[in-house]
Order: sequence, then C-alpha cells, then structure tokens
Amino acid sequence: MSLVVIGTVAFDAIETPFGKTDKIVGGAATFASLAASYSVKPVKIVSVVGDDFQQSDIAMLQQHGVDTEGLQVKQGEKSFFWAGKYANDLNSRDTLATELNVLATFDPIIPDSYQDCKYLMLGNLTPQIQRLVIQRLVNRPKLIVMDTMNFWMDTAMDDLLETIQMVDVLSINDEEARQLSGEYSLVKAARKILALGPKFLIIKKGEHGALLFHKKQVFFCPALPLEEVFDPTGAGDTFAGGFIGHVAATDDCSFENLKRAVIHGSAMASFCVEKFGTERLLNLTNEEIQEREKQFSDLVRVEEVLA
Amino acid sequence: MSLVVIGTVAFDAIETPFGKTDKIVGGAATFASLAASYSVKPVKIVSVVGDDFQQSDIAMLQQHGVDTEGLQVKQGEKSFFWAGKYANDLNSRDTLATELNVLATFDPIIPDSYQDCKYLMLGNLTPQIQRLVIQRLVNRPKLIVMDTMNFWMDTAMDDLLETIQMVDVLSINDEEARQLSGEYSLVKAARKILALGPKFLIIKKGEHGALLFHKKQVFFCPALPLEEVFDPTGAGDTFAGGFIGHVAATDDCSFENLKRAVIHGSAMASFCVEKFGTERLLNLTNEEIQEREKQFSDLVRVEEVLA
Repeated sequence: MSLVVIGTVAFDAIETPFGKTDKIVGGAATFASLAASYSVKPVKIVSVVGDDFQQSDIAMLQQHGVDTEGLQVKQGEKSFFWAGKYANDLNSRDTLATELNVLATFDPIIPDSYQDCKYLMLGNLTPQIQRLVIQRLVNRPKLIVMDTMNFWMDTAMDDLLETIQMVDVLSINDEEARQLSGEYSLVKAARKILALGPKFLIIKKGEHGALLFHKKQVFFCPALPLEEVFDPTGAGDTFAGGFIGHVAATDDCSFENLKRAVIHGSAMASFCVEKFGTERLLNLTNEEIQEREKQFSDLVRVEEVLA
Repeated sequence: MSLVVIGTVAFDAIETPFGKTDKIVGGAATFASLAASYSVKPVKIVSVVGDDFQQSDIAMLQQHGVDTEGLQVKQGEKSFFWAGKYANDLNSRDTLATELNVLATFDPIIPDSYQDCKYLMLGNLTPQIQRLVIQRLVNRPKLIVMDTMNFWMDTAMDDLLETIQMVDVLSINDEEARQLSGEYSLVKAARKILALGPKFLIIKKGEHGALLFHKKQVFFCPALPLEEVFDPTGAGDTFAGGFIGHVAATDDCSFENLKRAVIHGSAMASFCVEKFGTERLLNLTNEEIQEREKQFSDLVRVEEVLA
C-alpha cells in the first residue's frame, strides 16, 4: 500500500481577526500529507518549491513520515506564495497576493519509488497537472481523490471535466458544487456531478459539515461546533488528507468506510482551524484524535426509545 | 395534558422562484398548531383574526384538532397580512407588505378551558404579549417554548430579555443567536443565551440543520438534503410546533427526549417547505412522518466497526 499526495507546498501569509503571520509553510500537499501521516506512513508527496524553502521545513515534513523524494527544489527560484485576509466571520477572505513562482512551470515528476501508488490524493492544482500525474502512474491507483476549486471552473472547465472523469472521489464545497452542476439543490447537484464520472462526491460545507454522496445514498457529517475558529486556512486540504489517510490505512473503499473517513477528515480539519497554518497538525496524539472523533458521533447520537 | 399555542393566524402572499400565491392562510400559530396536531389533540390556539378570515379556514383548523375557542374574530377589522418575495436561493426574502390590522390591538384572552395548559408554545409575537400569556395562566406550565426574531432584538430588547427569562426553551436562528449574544461562535453564543434564563436553546440553521444546547451538552440535527425547496414560509413555526407537539405527546422534558423532538420538528419542517404555505401540512400520514424521521437518523448513521 502506498499513498501519494500531489499539491502545492508553499508559503502563506495569513491575516485573521485574531492575528496575522509572516510567511509560514502552507500549501495543499503540506496540509494533506501532515493530516494523512496520522493514519499512514510514509505519505509520498509530489510537489515543487524554490530555494527559499528551508531545509528545516523539509525536515519537518520528513519527521512526520512524509517522503519528499518527489518534492522538487528549484535553485534560484521562489516557492509559491499566497497571502490572504479573512473577514470577521471567517467565512470570506480576500486574496492579497498570489505569486505562482515555481508553480508556473511545475512538471510533476513521479519517482520510481512512487509507482506502487495504491491511493492518490490530487490536491488543488491546475486540472492538467492533476491529470498528468494520473497518466504518469504505470498502474491506475485503487482510489483517486481529487480536490479542486471554483477558479478552475471559471478558467479551465474543459480540462477540469476531463480530469474529474478520471477520479473516484471529488471533494468540493457547496458553492462549487452549485457552480459545477448549475443546480441549487445539493441533491440535484450531486446527481449531475456523479454522472460526470466520480463514484463518490464530497460536498464540504465548512462550519455546516460535509455531505458524502454515492449512487442514491447520502451521508451527512456535521462540523463540530467550536469555541474558537482561529484560522480556516488549509482546513479543506486537511480534511481531504485525513479522509484519504483513513481509507489508505484501512484499505477499504466501501461507502460505510468512506463515511468513517469523512468523520476522521472532519476531526482533523477541526484541529487545523484552532491555530495558524499547520501548527495544530504538528503534534497531535492518537488519543486527541479519537476523542475528537467521539465528539462527532456524540453530537448526533440519540438513544433508542425503549418500546 | 394540554398544549396551548399562541401566535399569529394570518394571510400571506408569497412569491418564490417557483411561483406566487394570492392571500393564503398563514401565521405562526397556524403552522405551529397544524404541525403539533400530528402528535397531540387538541391544540388550543390563542390568536386574533378579522372578519375577512373565512369560516372555512377556521373549520380547516378545527378539522385538524385545533381548538379555536381562543381565536378572537374582530368584526369590521382585517386579519394580519404579510407579503414577501424570496431570492432565487430562498435564503433571503424581501418583505413587500406588513399590515398589522387586528394584531395592532391584540389582547390575548385565555379561555378558562385553556387553564389546564401544561405545554405552552409562544409563537413569534411582541415579547410583551408573549409575557402577558404566561402571566394570565393561573398555573405555570411544565414547559414553555418561545420563538422570536431579530425584529424584537432591534426594537424591544428589554421586553425580549424579560420574556426570555421566563421560558424553558428558546428557539431562534443562527444569525439571531449571534445578534442576541454578540458572539460569533455559536458555542459561546449558546452559553451566554442560556445564562439569560432558558434551560434549553435551539439554534435553527435552516438548510444546515438545528442545534440543541442544554447546560454543557449539545445535539445536532441535520437538515434533510431536499430535491426541491418550494416555499420556506412557516418552516420555523412548523419546526417549533412539531417540537412541542412531540414533547407534549410524550410528556418527557429530558434532554434525550428533546433531541427526538428536534428530529420530529425538523421532519415536519421538511414537509412544510415542499409546497406553498400550509398545503403540505394538511394531509400527512403517520407513515410518511415516521419514514421522514427515519431518513434523518439514516443520514448520520455509521455502522460500528467490528473489532
């Protein structure tokens, strides 16, 4: 069994109502691989950074069981950089800066040691590059999970649809599901999107939880009502990484097990938002994670009425 | 056991993306009493209408087990009228007309036959009138549920707080909870609101479900992902009526049973939005309702992993 995660490894500068950071390590592959590393090791990442990326940052990933052989380091170039500022309710954010840098010419090279890939997480990237990774794997993985965003719906819909057709699980948020399907009802949206190819659709609703659709079945996982949401950055990537990490660790792609993966991913995401960037994901214990998962099931539990 | 429901009995003119109505019967007490009537009969209402209210409309309520002795009919006056138009996503609406009419001088008279009131539903009305009803009951009911809205927070906060202090269950939506508490986090908001007096707080999140708070405990009931939402009018009142109807029928005010009441109320509300106004609430079967409740528990059910 081998889990491969592709996505950005980058620098973020984040401002929330609770504080702001200078450049800190972020990126979809960073959040996803750290989240997955609590379920399975190694997590093999495919990404690219510039020589401004610190050796200590790479070491941090490696210490969490992340295999960085597929992480290209471009000398004389700079890493992808995103700066954003969140509104007071944390539900909307303004992008202050997006510097593609090394991402502009990213050619995802798959090391031979990654060719045993059984589970593939395609973090948010251009759909062409996501597709290229699938094509460069000698054997088709058992399960391919794809995360994407509205930006590609606006700018590269044909490419996006071509890639969506090749994956097993698509993970997007509710607004993106509505945009992709042209349907306001998430039930109708899910039906149209599943017809595009994926066997499973995850619709993320942020503070309102997540829906998992498969054929005519639907599962709802609530979001934990939190005291504090400090920084939502990376929550979706953390969810996706936790999700595929659970599936890879259990090696079970049944709808029933994918439900548990959604709960696990939601639990991981609920940690992510408690601190800036990846901070909260660096030192979790299995006990904390299990306790958090228990809170999710307790939240919706109702005792059966005794007849 | 006796259930008393106070609130408006009125005419609505509704426009949604799917159609529009002329004046149809609406009002908080109408939706709430019809919803509750599926759990317990009679439902004793306290309200006021004008002579424009048809005898056939009163007969409709009576046919559903609604006791209308407390429904005052003002000769030569007109019933409360509301007209509204919903946005395409049905999440926001513009009020096109609000004619208080008989409501402007409403003096809630409690018939002697209502003095056995054990369960009291205070539908959305001026907090002074809601309080007056409590004061006019000789014995304090076992459970008082109060529904209100942001309008009273803007215009009558002191009265609102005085009434909230007297009730057991407060039912408001998420934005109202944030406005009332000054807290964005619903967990913090709930803590502040429970400190105002109520033992239980229900936070309605519309298409995103509902939260029930009690002391340090919280329960989440999802909303059923629906094919079609046709008309949201009265959904909150229907939820509240279904909720107190279940509690009254089971005569059990435990947190565990109130969870079930939230599920039942959510199921009733999910019917309400499928047609204009009260239409869908007029001819439900117990089988339909039980099937709908089952869908709520199935939506969040995860099989235990066999060790």
